[in-house]
Amino acid sequence: MGGCMDGIRNICDRPKNTNIKWSLPAVCFVWQLSMIILFGVFVRYNEESDTHWVDYRKEKNITSDIENDYYFRYPSFQDVHVMIFVGFGFLMTFLKRYSFGAVGFNFLVAAFGIQWALLMQGWFHSLDYTDGKIKIGIENLINADFCVAGCLIAYGAVLGKVSPVQLLVMTLFGVTLFAVEEYIILNVLHAKDAGGSMVIHTFGAYYGLSISWVLYRPNLDRSKHLNGSVYQSDMFAQILFAYYFLAFNSAIADHGDGQHRAAINTYLALASTVLTTVAMSSLFEKTGKLDMVHIQNSTLAGGVAVGTAAEFMLSPYGSLIVGFFCGIISTLGYIYFSPFLEEKLKIQDTCGIHNLHAMPGVIGGIVGAISAAAATNTVYGDLGLENTFDFTGPFAKRVPTIQGGYQAAGLCVALCFGIGGGIFVGLVLKLPIWGDPADENCFDDEIYWEVPEDEESVPPILAYNNHMIPNKHADM
Amino acid sequence: MGGCMDGIRNICDRPKNTNIKWSLPAVCFVWQLSMIILFGVFVRYNEESDTHWVDYRKEKNITSDIENDYYFRYPSFQDVHVMIFVGFGFLMTFLKRYSFGAVGFNFLVAAFGIQWALLMQGWFHSLDYTDGKIKIGIENLINADFCVAGCLIAYGAVLGKVSPVQLLVMTLFGVTLFAVEEYIILNVLHAKDAGGSMVIHTFGAYYGLSISWVLYRPNLDRSKHLNGSVYQSDMFAQILFAYYFLAFNSAIADHGDGQHRAAINTYLALASTVLTTVAMSSLFEKTGKLDMVHIQNSTLAGGVAVGTAAEFMLSPYGSLIVGFFCGIISTLGYIYFSPFLEEKLKIQDTCGIHNLHAMPGVIGGIVGAISAAAATNTVYGDLGLENTFDFTGPFAKRVPTIQGGYQAAGLCVALCFGIGGGIFVGLVLKLPIWGDPADENCFDDEIYWEVPEDEESVPPILAYNNHMIPNKHADM
Amino acid sequence: MGGCMDGIRNICDRPKNTNIKWSLPAVCFVWQLSMIILFGVFVRYNEESDTHWVDYRKEKNITSDIENDYYFRYPSFQDVHVMIFVGFGFLMTFLKRYSFGAVGFNFLVAAFGIQWALLMQGWFHSLDYTDGKIKIGIENLINADFCVAGCLIAYGAVLGKVSPVQLLVMTLFGVTLFAVEEYIILNVLHAKDAGGSMVIHTFGAYYGLSISWVLYRPNLDRSKHLNGSVYQSDMFAQILFAYYFLAFNSAIADHGDGQHRAAINTYLALASTVLTTVAMSSLFEKTGKLDMVHIQNSTLAGGVAVGTAAEFMLSPYGSLIVGFFCGIISTLGYIYFSPFLEEKLKIQDTCGIHNLHAMPGVIGGIVGAISAAAATNTVYGDLGLENTFDFTGPFAKRVPTIQGGYQAAGLCVALCFGIGGGIFVGLVLKLPIWGDPADENCFDDEIYWEVPEDEESVPPILAYNNHMIPNKHADM
Repeated sequence: MGGCMDGIRNICDRPKNTNIKWSLPAVCFVWQLSMIILFGVFVRYNEESDTHWVDYRKEKNITSDIENDYYFRYPSFQDVHVMIFVGFGFLMTFLKRYSFGAVGFNFLVAAFGIQWALLMQGWFHSLDYTDGKIKIGIENLINADFCVAGCLIAYGAVLGKVSPVQLLVMTLFGVTLFAVEEYIILNVLHAKDAGGSMVIHTFGAYYGLSISWVLYRPNLDRSKHLNGSVYQSDMFAQILFAYYFLAFNSAIADHGDGQHRAAINTYLALASTVLTTVAMSSLFEKTGKLDMVHIQNSTLAGGVAVGTAAEFMLSPYGSLIVGFFCGIISTLGYIYFSPFLEEKLKIQDTCGIHNLHAMPGVIGGIVGAISAAAATNTVYGDLGLENTFDFTGPFAKRVPTIQGGYQAAGLCVALCFGIGGGIFVGLVLKLPIWGDPADENCFDDEIYWEVPEDEESVPPILAYNNHMIPNKHADM
Repeated sequence: MGGCMDGIRNICDRPKNTNIKWSLPAVCFVWQLSMIILFGVFVRYNEESDTHWVDYRKEKNITSDIENDYYFRYPSFQDVHVMIFVGFGFLMTFLKRYSFGAVGFNFLVAAFGIQWALLMQGWFHSLDYTDGKIKIGIENLINADFCVAGCLIAYGAVLGKVSPVQLLVMTLFGVTLFAVEEYIILNVLHAKDAGGSMVIHTFGAYYGLSISWVLYRPNLDRSKHLNGSVYQSDMFAQILFAYYFLAFNSAIADHGDGQHRAAINTYLALASTVLTTVAMSSLFEKTGKLDMVHIQNSTLAGGVAVGTAAEFMLSPYGSLIVGFFCGIISTLGYIYFSPFLEEKLKIQDTCGIHNLHAMPGVIGGIVGAISAAAATNTVYGDLGLENTFDFTGPFAKRVPTIQGGYQAAGLCVALCFGIGGGIFVGLVLKLPIWGDPADENCFDDEIYWEVPEDEESVPPILAYNNHMIPNKHADM
Repeated sequence: MGGCMDGIRNICDRPKNTNIKWSLPAVCFVWQLSMIILFGVFVRYNEESDTHWVDYRKEKNITSDIENDYYFRYPSFQDVHVMIFVGFGFLMTFLKRYSFGAVGFNFLVAAFGIQWALLMQGWFHSLDYTDGKIKIGIENLINADFCVAGCLIAYGAVLGKVSPVQLLVMTLFGVTLFAVEEYIILNVLHAKDAGGSMVIHTFGAYYGLSISWVLYRPNLDRSKHLNGSVYQSDMFAQILFAYYFLAFNSAIADHGDGQHRAAINTYLALASTVLTTVAMSSLFEKTGKLDMVHIQNSTLAGGVAVGTAAEFMLSPYGSLIVGFFCGIISTLGYIYFSPFLEEKLKIQDTCGIHNLHAMPGVIGGIVGAISAAAATNTVYGDLGLENTFDFTGPFAKRVPTIQGGYQAAGLCVALCFGIGGGIFVGLVLKLPIWGDPADENCFDDEIYWEVPEDEESVPPILAYNNHMIPNKHADM
């Protein structure tokens, strides 16, 4: 192992070559062609998106087209989809010179990942054994978006420090790991995770943090001048994002009361978390002033923390309590734990995903386990309990206390897959063949993007990004 | 009274202390803990968001989960919610150095207000007398958002001149007054107000204007250099906003034709108002050029003016007529009435909510009264008339002409609550204990926010807000 | 003809007068009053938006309000509507000094156009022959938005070079031509075009390009300094836009499986097109770096190219294939065809709509024709085939191969109407009475807008638009 690591280290000492002229197009073309072939072999419409729906309706005595799953899911789907393709990208545009990379690579990862996710998740969840085809409908699209969300969270930890080819490799492994982990948690353990606190946030965040740990760059301060953040650029995205959590947490909840309850719980948890975050921010800043960064990050954390339990009978006050503590913990994490993470644990977390996803995700998993274990027939009703936890088929005899244990086990699975997978993929990404930037070129769009120069001698930083602030060049 | 006012004036002469290090966290924590306790005692899921929905469905013979109110309301809800948490904030980001305050405090007010609104409105509208609990579902969430909208409109008048603690006091009283006023208008008077022209816009705007009148700052010109507006920063928000009115006006309209008609009427009124606004703007500017500010504000006004009557049989051409006149009146108000308001009436209206909400709200109330009074069985159909105006139960014998009178009475109630409540709350806010800024510090984020300085000697105004324009510092 | 052209040319040689102080208000007022009268005479609510819905429900045995078309269409409608009023405007804000014009005139065109579209399309499609009234519901609103989309696409080609009065004339003719063309394609030829690749994109783009060809300005380089693009300003809009295509393509598809399938096909085509675009961009740039402009434009093209066939059984892999080739063709078009268009064909295409709408629209039409011709009973099912292509009534005997021919005919009709109509309207717009700007004043908001100057000697370009980059003034 040591020798192997030494070998890798030697290779790594070669000067960096960031030319991706052949590797990136090659990966994209080969990938897209493979996808076309695999989709041709495996993927078909399901009974609700196929023209045979009209026959299916008759057969199943469905009285109206409105009962097509499309109408249950479309509004949430659209919100989730905008969040994946736009929201995550803009959450990452706070760096001075990395807007193209943040938005453009987010776009690339999403487009690349959802196709693979449709296949991987399809094989696990939507395979029609009569003809060996994956049958897809709108729920598959939402799940593919969720799967990619995990990879985009991980991207947050390594933002600005990897090449697009590395990102695609990360996504390929990430989606694969996600699909397996999700299958184990949701199907084998039969844990519930409507908002994905464990499956998406915990897994994605620890996957990214582990990769970042393996790819630790001791001399990253060489590009420190570009690692400063532009505070306001992401204000819009983050607030928008906070409120898309309503969609996120309710999108794949059960039809009817499940989706309804998920929206209520998320709404309340977010409201509560805003108040404690404001209080903590004012209390822990020397001058009593508020810090916008706390408010942005911690309020998002409230939505994550209520994810797993969103469709449970958490009760309105229960959601408020979760939000209350999550606001406190997340703000404290921001103030005290973030510096520790970088200095002691050597984890360079560009976007601060530890406070935004990792910790709240774990809280969400724990809240889910506790609230599942505490479920009673009195509160849920016999039928309600069965419906909410799907105590049917092989799981017909499971009781809430046992379910709580399986929820906790699910959280452990997510952590193991995140950390283990991240270390493995990090080692793969250390190979010097991926065109990643040298330490002094991190966080710079110039490496991978045509950055337009303005003919009128405008400082380049201004010329290419209106979200940026003028830096010292503006004074020259 | 005079002596009392003198006493207050004396207290007010003390130098301002804007330190909110203890007061803001204390208010937030106490408030949030109270909310948790009150929610624990009073708030439960209703039959559509509870796991007993499955039993309820059977009992009521509901054939499909899609008939859960969630599916009727969710798309509008999400739009309204984004509008409350993001839209209002960005409508107020036009000041040079007050973006953090505009967006951050909007966020705080919304999170603080919706919890109290759920309780207040719950006691009035959703109390289950069998067990003394408030049963909430998605319609309650929308109504809480609406209630907070009233407070956010009021915030527009005092933007930049109050402390966050004052804002929370304003919100506490505002939500309380709103809930009572709403109960009187909708339940006691049995007036209809789908889009909230009276209940939300008229009340909210006069509430804010009255507070601003009481808090008149004669020396506000000391911070005049910060009160200039940055024209484009809000372009996106306002236009977005204009088109969320479709959701706003239709969100709590009757299922079926009511929501459908509200969307059509709002769509047409907005289209019509754009044309007259453009015409008026070009006509009244000296050079014949258009003024973007007119277009932004007046087009919004069209959506407000059609609010009350949105679900009535206003007819497509009726909606166009409302939009036509609203465009004219609102643009004239902007040109002629706004200066009068500040100079003669001593009302300092930071965001111009008089033209945007107050006047159009009153127009909306009047249009509602007239169109209700003019309703006939021929146009509505017997059942349609009953359905639209809810002429059932104790109101079974009411006729449209009488309804018109009650609609007008509703408008008066909204005005009284707005003005009276605003004066009272204004006097409360004059107490010198709330940490409000001195005249020369108004409109400045520095007072309540950590405003990041860029190490590279970037002009501060640029450093903290990308929506800002470089000012003279940029040339230094 | 030659003499006539000479006459026009002589008139055109007079110096330009851009004063629209009387013409613009006059057109707006006359237009809006005419609309009110025409709506008063012709337009009424349809049975689903009228208060008689409650009677209609009983009569038709509709069990629930949720079967009102409003609930099938509202979520897509809202997305489409935001796209028309906000998305298109922001797609056009990339010019240095033309943000007011881009967003404001987009707004004006949309408001002006949708009213006329409701009438024109109403006469063709929603006329109730029993009482001679047009009965409107939410589908009419979506169709009116679509109709205006055609005009806004055309605006993209002439952006910055026309006066608002010219724009309104363009819109008046454009909507009229659109309605006729749409009637011929959808009703006479009975072609299907769910996403409007032919009806909207092909027609709109060639309409705009033809107008731009007739209005060719040989000395446009006089305002070249203003024609440079600000790369990032439209990043948000374009990406947002890309994902609203899901709504666009599925909004008026058939209830049930049709809308469901349209969403899936668009989702997949967009994902696929991103990958090939990234590959092509990297491959054809000298240094192997990516160009954001390619990625923005070409990914949109993928959504257009799958428009016509969106509700067909294109198959998941079929959608990937369409996206694959569209990404290649569109990026190549951008690199090689755009310069040719301007230099050889004398078409000045400000926004590059040829690559974004024209070419992908034609591809979409062809894909639609092929996939319709290839439809079989095996794949669609008997009932599914009948439903998807509406082989009922007078078209009951049509078979897929014939349908493919009619689809191709539809594409030709769209091209003819676009090019022919564009040349005619272009000649009308050449009359020197419309207040269009001189060559040296193109792309400048100053001509038609009050552009606020900041008192603190801020460079004007900065003062009025936060989306702008500081230019050389910033260094003074």
